[in-house]
Amino acid sequence: MTSAPPAAGPAAALTSALERVAAGESGQLARLAEFVRIPSVSADPAHAADVAAAADWLAGELRRIGLEHVEVHPTPLHPIVTADWLHAGPDAPTVLVYGHVDVQPVEPLEAWTSPPFELTERDGRLYARGSTDDKGQLYMHIAAVEAMFAAGGGRLPCNLRFLSDGEEEIGSPSLAAFLDAHPDLIAADVALVSDSPMYAHGVPSVGYALRGLCYVEVSVETAATDLHSGQFGGAVPNAAQVLVDMLATLHDADGRVTVPGFYESVAPVPDAERAALGGLPFDEPGWLAAVGAAVGCGESGYSTLERTWIRPTLELNGLTSGHQGSGPKTIVPARASAKVSCRLVPDQRPEEVGALVSAHLTSLAPPGARVTATASSSTGPAVTPTDDPAVRTAVAALRTAFGAEPYLIRDGGAIPAVALLQDLLGIRSVLLGFGCPDENKHGPDEWLSLEHYRRGLETLVRFWHDLAEEKTR
Amino acid sequence: MTSAPPAAGPAAALTSALERVAAGESGQLARLAEFVRIPSVSADPAHAADVAAAADWLAGELRRIGLEHVEVHPTPLHPIVTADWLHAGPDAPTVLVYGHVDVQPVEPLEAWTSPPFELTERDGRLYARGSTDDKGQLYMHIAAVEAMFAAGGGRLPCNLRFLSDGEEEIGSPSLAAFLDAHPDLIAADVALVSDSPMYAHGVPSVGYALRGLCYVEVSVETAATDLHSGQFGGAVPNAAQVLVDMLATLHDADGRVTVPGFYESVAPVPDAERAALGGLPFDEPGWLAAVGAAVGCGESGYSTLERTWIRPTLELNGLTSGHQGSGPKTIVPARASAKVSCRLVPDQRPEEVGALVSAHLTSLAPPGARVTATASSSTGPAVTPTDDPAVRTAVAALRTAFGAEPYLIRDGGAIPAVALLQDLLGIRSVLLGFGCPDENKHGPDEWLSLEHYRRGLETLVRFWHDLAEEKTR
Repeated sequence: MTSAPPAAGPAAALTSALERVAAGESGQLARLAEFVRIPSVSADPAHAADVAAAADWLAGELRRIGLEHVEVHPTPLHPIVTADWLHAGPDAPTVLVYGHVDVQPVEPLEAWTSPPFELTERDGRLYARGSTDDKGQLYMHIAAVEAMFAAGGGRLPCNLRFLSDGEEEIGSPSLAAFLDAHPDLIAADVALVSDSPMYAHGVPSVGYALRGLCYVEVSVETAATDLHSGQFGGAVPNAAQVLVDMLATLHDADGRVTVPGFYESVAPVPDAERAALGGLPFDEPGWLAAVGAAVGCGESGYSTLERTWIRPTLELNGLTSGHQGSGPKTIVPARASAKVSCRLVPDQRPEEVGALVSAHLTSLAPPGARVTATASSSTGPAVTPTDDPAVRTAVAALRTAFGAEPYLIRDGGAIPAVALLQDLLGIRSVLLGFGCPDENKHGPDEWLSLEHYRRGLETLVRFWHDLAEEKTR
Repeated sequence: MTSAPPAAGPAAALTSALERVAAGESGQLARLAEFVRIPSVSADPAHAADVAAAADWLAGELRRIGLEHVEVHPTPLHPIVTADWLHAGPDAPTVLVYGHVDVQPVEPLEAWTSPPFELTERDGRLYARGSTDDKGQLYMHIAAVEAMFAAGGGRLPCNLRFLSDGEEEIGSPSLAAFLDAHPDLIAADVALVSDSPMYAHGVPSVGYALRGLCYVEVSVETAATDLHSGQFGGAVPNAAQVLVDMLATLHDADGRVTVPGFYESVAPVPDAERAALGGLPFDEPGWLAAVGAAVGCGESGYSTLERTWIRPTLELNGLTSGHQGSGPKTIVPARASAKVSCRLVPDQRPEEVGALVSAHLTSLAPPGARVTATASSSTGPAVTPTDDPAVRTAVAALRTAFGAEPYLIRDGGAIPAVALLQDLLGIRSVLLGFGCPDENKHGPDEWLSLEHYRRGLETLVRFWHDLAEEKTR
């Protein structure tokens, strides 16, 4: 950290903050190494204390850099951390930074080149569980704010609120109740979320939309117990056959979902937006080859990017019935089940679609089959208008920091917090991710590009200063 | 055992044998208790020594009652026992008795009322693992032969060969090679097999046909690894969906199997036989209710008994794909597999049908799906003409012993030995089972009716004497 005095005007403060954030890298990475060393695996009850330790560590760091009202809130599962700094004045925008301290499991351990909880720099990459998802990206916000405080004489260009989740990797089950109980701690003009990848390495992008999700489990029962296929085969309903017969009807020949009402609430995507998405360069053969898929497929009339970004889908996630061990077993299975999930787009509501899918599956039951369907785990879709000032500001900051024209992109996945902030509090999010699609998020050897880390820090500092300017323009 | 002197003529010998077999019951059951005490579970490698011990015990018993050439033959897995007594003369028929010393596993132990390997009499039932399948029924042949030897002054009315399997419960994998290598030890006019149930309690029946079996495992692969359904869902093939789409086409609206050529080798069943089967009383609602099935279903144009006895079937036995644990996991599964089996009727050959099904499944692969299908574990169908002298003799013996008109029945299951004896050595089998369909064969609290045991012994003794008479008539 330099010891230069605070800069005088906004332009000077920006320059000073950029110098300070770059000069502070070794200290930042040392602290990030402390953060990733805490094995805060939220899915594993054995690591509950580690998730809490990561929240405490974060709270300490937020206090150290000068945030106020730092609080660690217990929840039924893992703690939530909030903090703020609200002295930029009533005319300055308020930015809510959202991130999460929890990480995915690290198994299989033997697939890691260096230990998963040791931040290790190799070939311009920062390797560790959480490096890109999300401790590394979350820490970038801390480093940027620290530099801006120093450059601004203890002041920031905008008001800041901070919200950290400890359950993002398991669907943020405690977040909705927290937001309901503490809207005052969250109120902001925009949420800034760095928990998603850029379009590609070196291709800066701003994400403005996520799909939603609903999950349905369907079970079929045809008898009290598995039956001998010699005595009963060919003469009584077979639960496995009933299930596959039902599931095979869920798409028509055009790849459209056949659940009645499924598309009813889908808001049309403007032609201009479809045209813009269609203009993005997309290497479909490379995209398929990278995952060992031979062909693309899906809903007729839509491109692959449109199928994953702007169209709702229904996918089978799992099948279970009868004998699954090795060798033969000649039974008529009495039970069969499937896991089904739908990705949703505006203005579909997950509860509604979950109910439609459940009702449709139940209606498909043939005589002699008891079918139950249960919807769960729903997240709404989220979209932020691309003409939002924060989106424009993020585009400009990225353009300068990365020296390339940013893409406006959607994302086919879901981030529960983004949907909840929109649906419960009306706060739109800007997805300003600095990761890349190939950074092994959730897998072994997760990494974050050091170049993206540096350009990302510059982007964040520019964003804060530009947003303050934008507001006063 | 009585100490009366051997009887003089055939009729006197029959009477004497019937008296002796009835009088010897307590000794028979004491020896059967020894037999069932050996936990000869063939599916469990930990019990291999027990299966061998059961074979040795049986060999000792065969020697004790007077059989000759008693041999215990090692196989790659569990031993086979053979023996004979061939002094009834060249004009007397030769009867091959087939049974097995191995049993099914006994888990769950806590579901047994008395210990599974302790023969326990309760309410006129003999409880134990193997009581009906097959140690109890096999021991009935020993008891009958012992009584006939005593009544006949060391002679039997017919020639006897004895063949005992140690692998029946796991598909008799060593038997074909053994029969190929030792046809001389097996040569007989007819095989007598007591390893199947009667039509119902108190309803004597002779089984003259079994269905065959072929097993096919099919696997679908669409990508190198499970994919994130947010990033890839709706745009790449889903292995689970590909599998269910394929499996849903395997039957048409009439319940017929759609595999090309599937029915080509099915021999027509004579109208008279269909009429006879149609005349059997069958409580379909009770049959369904007993297993918790709400309705029957299957191939149009056939009754439930016909569907399970004279028609070939294709059944799904298991499904596996993607996430099977609790809770949601939003993946596009890269792999899915199913176990499929077909019950076969004359003149279908299991290898041919297995190849047809495998080829058809492979042909159903849509673009982007790698489908493999592997056939295994096949058994041929078996049928013995109902006008065979041994069938007629068995009917007459049952009629007298049970005091009721016997039914001629088929069985939907498979007994590998019966198919192999027919296919490799041209020996037809008479299925003279004394069990009942509700005796918990393969389940906890397996039992054999003591009344059926007694009437069955009388049936066996009458059968041997009547068959000798029939031959000389």
